[in-house]
Amino acid sequence: MALNLAQKLIASHLADGDLTPGSEIALRIDQTLLQDVLGSLVMLELEAMGVERVKVGLAAQYVDHNLVQNDHLNADEHMFLRSACRRFGVWYSRPGNGISHPVHMQAFGKPGQTLVGSDSHSPAAGSLGMLAFGAGGVEVALAMAGEPLYLRMPRVWGVKLTGQLPDWVSAKDVILEMLRRHGVEGGFGRIVEYYGPGLDTLSAMDRHVIANMGAEMGATTSVFPSDEATRQYLASVGREADWVALGPDAGATYDDHEEIDLSTLVPLIARPSSPGNVVPVSEAAGEEIYQSYIGSSANPGFRDFAVTAEIVKGSQVHDRVSFDVNPSTRQVLETLIAKGHLSDLIHAGARVHQAGCNGCIGMGQAPASGRNSLRTVPRNFPGRSGTREDSVFLCSPETAAASALSGVITDPRTLAMPYPRVAAPEMVKTNTTMLVPPLPEAEARAARLEKTDNITTLPELGRLGQSIRVPVLLKTGDDISTDDIMPAGARVMPYWSNIPKTSDFTFEPIDPTYPQRAKQAGPGRAGHAILGGLNYGQGSSRENAALAPRYLGLETVLAKSFARIHWQNLVNFGVLPLTFADPADYDGLEIGDMVEIEDVAGALKGGKAVTARVRGREIALRHDLSARQIEVLLAGGVINWLRARLQSEPARTVA
Amino acid sequence: MALNLAQKLIASHLADGDLTPGSEIALRIDQTLLQDVLGSLVMLELEAMGVERVKVGLAAQYVDHNLVQNDHLNADEHMFLRSACRRFGVWYSRPGNGISHPVHMQAFGKPGQTLVGSDSHSPAAGSLGMLAFGAGGVEVALAMAGEPLYLRMPRVWGVKLTGQLPDWVSAKDVILEMLRRHGVEGGFGRIVEYYGPGLDTLSAMDRHVIANMGAEMGATTSVFPSDEATRQYLASVGREADWVALGPDAGATYDDHEEIDLSTLVPLIARPSSPGNVVPVSEAAGEEIYQSYIGSSANPGFRDFAVTAEIVKGSQVHDRVSFDVNPSTRQVLETLIAKGHLSDLIHAGARVHQAGCNGCIGMGQAPASGRNSLRTVPRNFPGRSGTREDSVFLCSPETAAASALSGVITDPRTLAMPYPRVAAPEMVKTNTTMLVPPLPEAEARAARLEKTDNITTLPELGRLGQSIRVPVLLKTGDDISTDDIMPAGARVMPYWSNIPKTSDFTFEPIDPTYPQRAKQAGPGRAGHAILGGLNYGQGSSRENAALAPRYLGLETVLAKSFARIHWQNLVNFGVLPLTFADPADYDGLEIGDMVEIEDVAGALKGGKAVTARVRGREIALRHDLSARQIEVLLAGGVINWLRARLQSEPARTVA
Repeated sequence: MALNLAQKLIASHLADGDLTPGSEIALRIDQTLLQDVLGSLVMLELEAMGVERVKVGLAAQYVDHNLVQNDHLNADEHMFLRSACRRFGVWYSRPGNGISHPVHMQAFGKPGQTLVGSDSHSPAAGSLGMLAFGAGGVEVALAMAGEPLYLRMPRVWGVKLTGQLPDWVSAKDVILEMLRRHGVEGGFGRIVEYYGPGLDTLSAMDRHVIANMGAEMGATTSVFPSDEATRQYLASVGREADWVALGPDAGATYDDHEEIDLSTLVPLIARPSSPGNVVPVSEAAGEEIYQSYIGSSANPGFRDFAVTAEIVKGSQVHDRVSFDVNPSTRQVLETLIAKGHLSDLIHAGARVHQAGCNGCIGMGQAPASGRNSLRTVPRNFPGRSGTREDSVFLCSPETAAASALSGVITDPRTLAMPYPRVAAPEMVKTNTTMLVPPLPEAEARAARLEKTDNITTLPELGRLGQSIRVPVLLKTGDDISTDDIMPAGARVMPYWSNIPKTSDFTFEPIDPTYPQRAKQAGPGRAGHAILGGLNYGQGSSRENAALAPRYLGLETVLAKSFARIHWQNLVNFGVLPLTFADPADYDGLEIGDMVEIEDVAGALKGGKAVTARVRGREIALRHDLSARQIEVLLAGGVINWLRARLQSEPARTVA
Repeated sequence: MALNLAQKLIASHLADGDLTPGSEIALRIDQTLLQDVLGSLVMLELEAMGVERVKVGLAAQYVDHNLVQNDHLNADEHMFLRSACRRFGVWYSRPGNGISHPVHMQAFGKPGQTLVGSDSHSPAAGSLGMLAFGAGGVEVALAMAGEPLYLRMPRVWGVKLTGQLPDWVSAKDVILEMLRRHGVEGGFGRIVEYYGPGLDTLSAMDRHVIANMGAEMGATTSVFPSDEATRQYLASVGREADWVALGPDAGATYDDHEEIDLSTLVPLIARPSSPGNVVPVSEAAGEEIYQSYIGSSANPGFRDFAVTAEIVKGSQVHDRVSFDVNPSTRQVLETLIAKGHLSDLIHAGARVHQAGCNGCIGMGQAPASGRNSLRTVPRNFPGRSGTREDSVFLCSPETAAASALSGVITDPRTLAMPYPRVAAPEMVKTNTTMLVPPLPEAEARAARLEKTDNITTLPELGRLGQSIRVPVLLKTGDDISTDDIMPAGARVMPYWSNIPKTSDFTFEPIDPTYPQRAKQAGPGRAGHAILGGLNYGQGSSRENAALAPRYLGLETVLAKSFARIHWQNLVNFGVLPLTFADPADYDGLEIGDMVEIEDVAGALKGGKAVTARVRGREIALRHDLSARQIEVLLAGGVINWLRARLQSEPARTVA
């Protein structure tokens, strides 16, 4: 049978299951990726599991989020992560080396391999013909421990690209077009596979832009073939030997179909405050801006900065505009210097920041209140910028640069200049010395974790009870993101490994009284329920968005639908996710209602239907758990489940 | 009579008084300098005073402190300052353009002129033969309104420089040697005037280093002649026309004397946590470090970064060391790029930040707790880095660079390489487009202040009562800095224009219960007293260190001695500063004691002696107030005093 690329990548890594969409499969994992905010929890989980040394082929830890050190907390965490990398045999990418996704792509990306990362944009690696998933930290911990990754076999959505992008339209506009057509839920349960003749004019970094923001459609991942563009990219970073050609079999088919003629695209922009609010830039043109922001893993390539530099070269940005340039990696920064672009950016008025995620995750560069910020980043969820009443637009570097000059939202096609088409550099300035290799095993065993008061032992979680009888504490509406559940930003992220402390921020943007009410409702299993709308838990993969509410007593979430990663995180930390059989039932439930479910274990094992009783009425619910997940849930989460398994197994030899 | 340079500069600007040390003089001011943290208060003061347009020759506002935007507050303040500059006719140096002192030096520094700045390092302008003072914001507001600056005529301390610095020893070591010899109180009541043949080998930027950190000795200011080095510097920034030769008259004498043979100096380092704890680097060598930090107004020159780059070029910093490079100005950054140095720094592992004060003022880059941080900054007061339990050393770029490579404190003379002597560039890359000129007056009058909830009206302060009868709420010990009184850092500084909010942080590092206890003691004139040791209020010139305690009810500070700027700030905001006639009386007083002073006005006007009654005992105190200051104090501070004066005057014409 002719397979498409996604199916081939899955088939070559299948540890359990088959290619039937919807069935649970287990995949062997070749590489893991951690970023710092979520990495510390993972390292504590590895320690708790008794792991001596990672068993995955390649594990890397990046320090790219918590870079603003306003007190000791972030620096302490960097030192902890460094020590944990030394202890467990993990590559350590030092603060200032850059954003995980582009650094990983350059240093380790390898066509045909699988990757799981504790960051929702990990699918960016699909740009090189990898099969890459974002997941909760504990799933990454399991993969690092040598376990397979479990997921539902997704449908494969073939997106045929034809034509060629016009001047002033770039890769960002391609993924914005996908979001315009399909919204933030369009990718649910699907792998997006790009193919067709339009690929010929998209570089590997262009594909990174598109694969990265597939996460914004809720796609399981995105994949691109490994072709001549891939070879060129790997050659440019000195790793041509890692290239292999990979693509769909001749005659392969897809479960779903889409086609984009690149030549018809125009500059697009996502209005506040969802990546799905996409309109042509021309429709928003003329609105005054405070900020133009270049950077992030959504536009991380040399060309994204270089084209910006070419546009502003010799001019000055408007004197009201904060023109923030955030180099994605140290390599890009060095190459921009070498080619003269950094100088042009600074001369035009850029504020250049260290390589990393920075303002994309609310770590500095927050806009003035109520003023418009144009950003090349992947997300504009409310408040993610750090400013509570923010107004963030997502766009291409071309649009951001044109708008920086004029001080108002500007369609770059209206600039009176020829389009500065920038090619990817044939050779980037490569320097991996800020990427510290794992210690040899003997040295690693002698290394010690450098803990602090803020990097604490995980709270012990109890098993699921025989029945659930809990009040509804919160009703959230649709499209609640993990940023809503667990805010990011410089104020909160330093505490993300400290669950008791972090829990005080839970749901702060939605209802800051929630943590206090949850504590009054009683900690532990005398818990509570939450009602969610559509797409509950979209966005970032942060697992503390499940762990912190669980710590506060959350037992079950009843929602119209769940975002995939957060749904998994809930299960992994022992919270039961259920969907309404009839979404209209959501409307009839209110805060304070008691939700009762008898014989939970029996109900879950008996089939997909679960009945809850609320105010004497029966509510039909469904679960979507595999047999393995039911065991995990009953055990009170995956840490309990794995610990029990490891304790019952004979001692393992170290790889 | 032959005058020294300090006397000549004073004589040429004297509006009142004479050159007798200790007498009050009034000086005409040519230029004013504001930084952002303190600038907003000044703008609100100008508004409160009814000023239409500044009357000083040149007024500049810099945005260099509050650069980390973790929420809307800092960005909102930038927008407010921009609007205020437009409104009042002030130059606006945009965020990312650099630190006030080196930017001002390059754009506006002019031998022979006077300057007052709301930043304690404003004396750095003395490097170009200017007479420059740091002062509280309200004194800068008065200067902007065209008023003279009042101060005690200082003694002039002639420091004769001979010889030439050895390899690996640079300007920072000269000022550290002054601090080693004389400590943080050595400059009290004095202008330090450098002269002699040793000057021939010190560039204008070397002199900036020395003049800048004269503030750490408590000196009123420091001055250098305007000579060939000054001419070269002004030529390098395209302003040779502003050069004039200036120096002491032949046969001039000094009130005090010192001599330094530069050829005898060695690399020096100030240990935690005072700029006065100076030892040779060799004595501290071998201690493990977390951080090596290059930047700040204390080492702002091109050569300071270039010499660092030359030392680390081709090597890698130790993998534990956070190597933070903070370009002082956009010009320096552009020049470093042009000369290839930035690339070398980044390649060696530098985290490069936007141009500005940054970590020097606790705005990012805080070190890990309890670990050593080597910095080229001017101050290492406890907690100023942002980390409460910090361990900050002050040193030259040479020492910081050598230590970054080894990971331990390292005497740069032990490096196995020839000393990379770097010359100042003949021409820096000049670009003043981020320095926005004042609007023409008609446009300015139409401009509006863009206020926010956080930029609030100043609290109304009452007149001094007939008598003082208040309890002692705090006893502080010696060398309390304004950082102790009003913490800086990213957490507090965004609120510095919001006195009610800021007051909650007052004395937090010393006694966090103080604000609450002060409020219980009763706000306003039912106030309290504070007991201070030696050098009370050293360090930064922040006026809210006087205004916030006053808002909380502080009426009088009884101290062994005061730092000059803070003493002035206390008077300006209506707090009575008194010194113990017998310092031993300090020991006999305790928290809770009631301090009673009868007929305050009569006592102050009657002479320098003031008697307080405590527990039935008489305590002999002294004040050092001029007749004008007594009026200011009785009025409840300088805003009340000036408002009353302006109201009683005929309407003034606008300049």
